[in-house]
Amino acid sequence: LATLGIDLGGTFARAAIVEKDGTILAAAKMALTDRTPEAVVHAITQASRDAVTAAGVGPIEGCGVGVAGQLRGETGVIAIAPNLGWREVPFGQMLADALGRPVRVVNDLAAAAWGELHAGAGKGARDLLVVFVGSGVGSCIISNGQIVRGANGMAGELGHIKVVANGRMCGCGQKGCLEAYVGGHNLIAQMREALEQGRPTALTALTGGDPLRLTPAVLEEAARANDPIALGIYETAVGYLAVAIANQVTVLNPARLIRGGGVLTHAPGMRAKVAEGVAAFASVTSRSAVTVLEAALRDDSGLIGAALLAT
Amino acid sequence: LATLGIDLGGTFARAAIVEKDGTILAAAKMALTDRTPEAVVHAITQASRDAVTAAGVGPIEGCGVGVAGQLRGETGVIAIAPNLGWREVPFGQMLADALGRPVRVVNDLAAAAWGELHAGAGKGARDLLVVFVGSGVGSCIISNGQIVRGANGMAGELGHIKVVANGRMCGCGQKGCLEAYVGGHNLIAQMREALEQGRPTALTALTGGDPLRLTPAVLEEAARANDPIALGIYETAVGYLAVAIANQVTVLNPARLIRGGGVLTHAPGMRAKVAEGVAAFASVTSRSAVTVLEAALRDDSGLIGAALLAT
Repeated sequence: LATLGIDLGGTFARAAIVEKDGTILAAAKMALTDRTPEAVVHAITQASRDAVTAAGVGPIEGCGVGVAGQLRGETGVIAIAPNLGWREVPFGQMLADALGRPVRVVNDLAAAAWGELHAGAGKGARDLLVVFVGSGVGSCIISNGQIVRGANGMAGELGHIKVVANGRMCGCGQKGCLEAYVGGHNLIAQMREALEQGRPTALTALTGGDPLRLTPAVLEEAARANDPIALGIYETAVGYLAVAIANQVTVLNPARLIRGGGVLTHAPGMRAKVAEGVAAFASVTSRSAVTVLEAALRDDSGLIGAALLAT
Repeated sequence: LATLGIDLGGTFARAAIVEKDGTILAAAKMALTDRTPEAVVHAITQASRDAVTAAGVGPIEGCGVGVAGQLRGETGVIAIAPNLGWREVPFGQMLADALGRPVRVVNDLAAAAWGELHAGAGKGARDLLVVFVGSGVGSCIISNGQIVRGANGMAGELGHIKVVANGRMCGCGQKGCLEAYVGGHNLIAQMREALEQGRPTALTALTGGDPLRLTPAVLEEAARANDPIALGIYETAVGYLAVAIANQVTVLNPARLIRGGGVLTHAPGMRAKVAEGVAAFASVTSRSAVTVLEAALRDDSGLIGAALLAT
């Protein structure tokens, strides 16, 4: 029997029919032009029908949805989903009514970690630290084969550990968070601030002076060319990220550290610095126990994991 | 049915008969004058007999031993116990042979956390972060009622996260570890270094110039009196400790943070700063979910927890 996995992002929803071993039988994608909960439910229902039809399988056992946001435990209520502008949406129930089957709503990083554990870079291990650096910074801890959820399901918020006393303002309202230095949005914001100040930098030539073309990959390219502005932003970011992850490896003693997310995918130098940081800064015992890998399912970790969490 | 709990320290071993609810029926203590494994087994056997006799109960179901050190999983082999000077000692088997019953050897902090979870400040919760600051700094994470052990049982090494790039040398051989600034041994070492440099400080008067009278409590007293040397050491230590613990609260989202250990017990100001640090620096979600408490079983957390882990 296969299950339905949904990856609910800020601009697209993807649906896939996934077998127990993590194989995707069929997938469909819908743009979220209207982000009201009703319209999103409609788009997902449509994508799900398309995927079921394309897969040509019989009845689907369950449905799991991974969403970037804060959930009210296992109730299916999304407390806050910043990308969608949602607050207190009983999304699980709405989708279950539309699909006519039970729906489990989970955090997107928990879904991704679960996918990697069962069908990706975590296969065969029971203790993982999964770190995704995209527009934000998040992690998921797997201990003895189980997701560490915390008292209200918010464990893993690595992006909001404090790395600088009274540092950069973070989107969360606090200062000095790791994400304020390392998250994709904030890498770009720091480059834009430098450009706006009119400081001479290779970033201007690399982007034709267009701030919309600033990306983490451009930052890495300029840093490699020893541009001082880019180097400053880049070295600060990788420094904090590498120590933060090494410290989590020290405390959690995982068998595998799995790196994913857009920033780490498109800035391979940063990905390498994370591995070097673990080798240099994690405790002797923990660093000897850990294998550092990349998310093997790439963009599909969360889609596959959401489906597997529904079984 | 009751079980036997053993707390194996560097200078004493304690044995107790403990009921399922954590009540100590009887306890005995033996000084470890000879720290060879054979002598320690002998001392524990003696203390255990004394405790069993004093408790006047029938057959004892099992035996759990908490020891400060690195274990080889559940084999009962102690890989390294620095306080005892042991390496690769098959202690579980040796003690089981002597006592004529099965023995489970666990990490001392895991034992303490388990004791607090079932009979102390963690009762009724399922997600705990237990932090002990004594001569060293250690922690134990409980997730959904289970101890987070890590790939080779070394999870929780909070003392060896890096807080300063190229900082103070730590006993572990790495530099800049939290423990190098905050552990009791290192607090004393830093005060002694200041005294040896002949720097004028209130610590001289408070100890009569005797370095053997330097303690974390003396440090706190001198810091309260605004002695610059003491303040420097103290503020540095509490600053790193508070942020480190707040960051772990952010990542783990525990229902309770339980503080214990000699330094936090005898330096109440430091204990208070930990609570203030969590309120100031933990993520908004995680700090609102956590209750900050003291270890309720005091010195008996590990003794009781070791017994309860043997059931």
